[in-house]
Amino acid sequence: MEVLSKQNPLFTLYSCHAALLVCKIIFVGFSTSMVRVFKKVTPNPEDAKFMGTKPFIGDPTIERIRRAHRNDLENIPAFLFVSFLYVLTNPSYVVAKILFWSFTIARYSHTLVYAYLPIPQPARALSFAVGLIATFIMAIQVLFYFY
Amino acid sequence: MEVLSKQNPLFTLYSCHAALLVCKIIFVGFSTSMVRVFKKVTPNPEDAKFMGTKPFIGDPTIERIRRAHRNDLENIPAFLFVSFLYVLTNPSYVVAKILFWSFTIARYSHTLVYAYLPIPQPARALSFAVGLIATFIMAIQVLFYFY
Amino acid sequence: MEVLSKQNPLFTLYSCHAALLVCKIIFVGFSTSMVRVFKKVTPNPEDAKFMGTKPFIGDPTIERIRRAHRNDLENIPAFLFVSFLYVLTNPSYVVAKILFWSFTIARYSHTLVYAYLPIPQPARALSFAVGLIATFIMAIQVLFYFY
Repeated sequence: MEVLSKQNPLFTLYSCHAALLVCKIIFVGFSTSMVRVFKKVTPNPEDAKFMGTKPFIGDPTIERIRRAHRNDLENIPAFLFVSFLYVLTNPSYVVAKILFWSFTIARYSHTLVYAYLPIPQPARALSFAVGLIATFIMAIQVLFYFY
Repeated sequence: MEVLSKQNPLFTLYSCHAALLVCKIIFVGFSTSMVRVFKKVTPNPEDAKFMGTKPFIGDPTIERIRRAHRNDLENIPAFLFVSFLYVLTNPSYVVAKILFWSFTIARYSHTLVYAYLPIPQPARALSFAVGLIATFIMAIQVLFYFY
Repeated sequence: MEVLSKQNPLFTLYSCHAALLVCKIIFVGFSTSMVRVFKKVTPNPEDAKFMGTKPFIGDPTIERIRRAHRNDLENIPAFLFVSFLYVLTNPSYVVAKILFWSFTIARYSHTLVYAYLPIPQPARALSFAVGLIATFIMAIQVLFYFY
């Protein structure tokens, strides 16, 4: 059986989650641009000129989206590297599915409550923690398997 | 035929683009340090002490390079994950080549017009959009293929 | 011999370093949250409300950890992409081991002297440079091999 193919259900699972997470990163990046245009807040003189406004840094809505986006960059690539290796450690399919879905749902929730629909803590802290723990469990498994 | 080898033209294409994009990220990181030393603007007391100046945050040239760099981090890893999986979906070589070159040229242009040679919009917006669309097309293809 | 398996000592080396580097990224992310809670400095109103304080941006300790973290994001994913491809270029095991350990030790030192134990320059500049050079050497090798 080819490891990196459709015949491997673990790799198929990985690929779908990777695509879902990349789409989310793309969407947040795109929405930052859209909100900037809509609210006419941009840090660069050439953009401000194009929109007939003045450069502005620190709009609270934009900064929230940017923090959500940055949090993704701190967590999603780490997950995608380590879960790719995790798939090669011969894990249980059920456990992998639980870890992958936990991470993906946690990251989607994190972005939702951070960037678009702020609700009281600990909503964001919990989704951050779930993602971190899922990644950490896989990193440890990778270390134990390959060391 | 080995998928992850020189015998696979799609993987060879992927590897060259990955190396080109990583070199670009490295170069921007290095240039940030160089401009900081040259303009003597650094946010950290120990650096300022080393250069005989005072810590300073918010130099406009540095902040432009940093925003260009951050935009890379928001887009290049997403592309490298999804295009790796895209290569495994049996795509047409010509389509893959168009998507990969579009992305790489778009990202190089984006950095050029953002960090080093500011020209009026929509130059930067267009290069940002081309990169985003190329990544999104591949993410959808990966989802359809593996789901 | 399977390339992506325990039988390949180069891939085993890669997997362990990837896990070590991902654990470091996770740890820095976690420590940011912990220091925020401990020092009661957070940029978001909902967090401040939860802790009974006011939103605050720009605490110097937090900003140092954030800069260290961001520097990781600028360097570690680039390394993990390029070193994965480097493993497939049939390199000498000894050279790979030197490059991988140089990078990992450099990044751990970088975080230590940046975020947690500031010591005078050029400690941080050197660890930054070592990581950058290791990545660049591998990127060039990947380009030469696959082009």
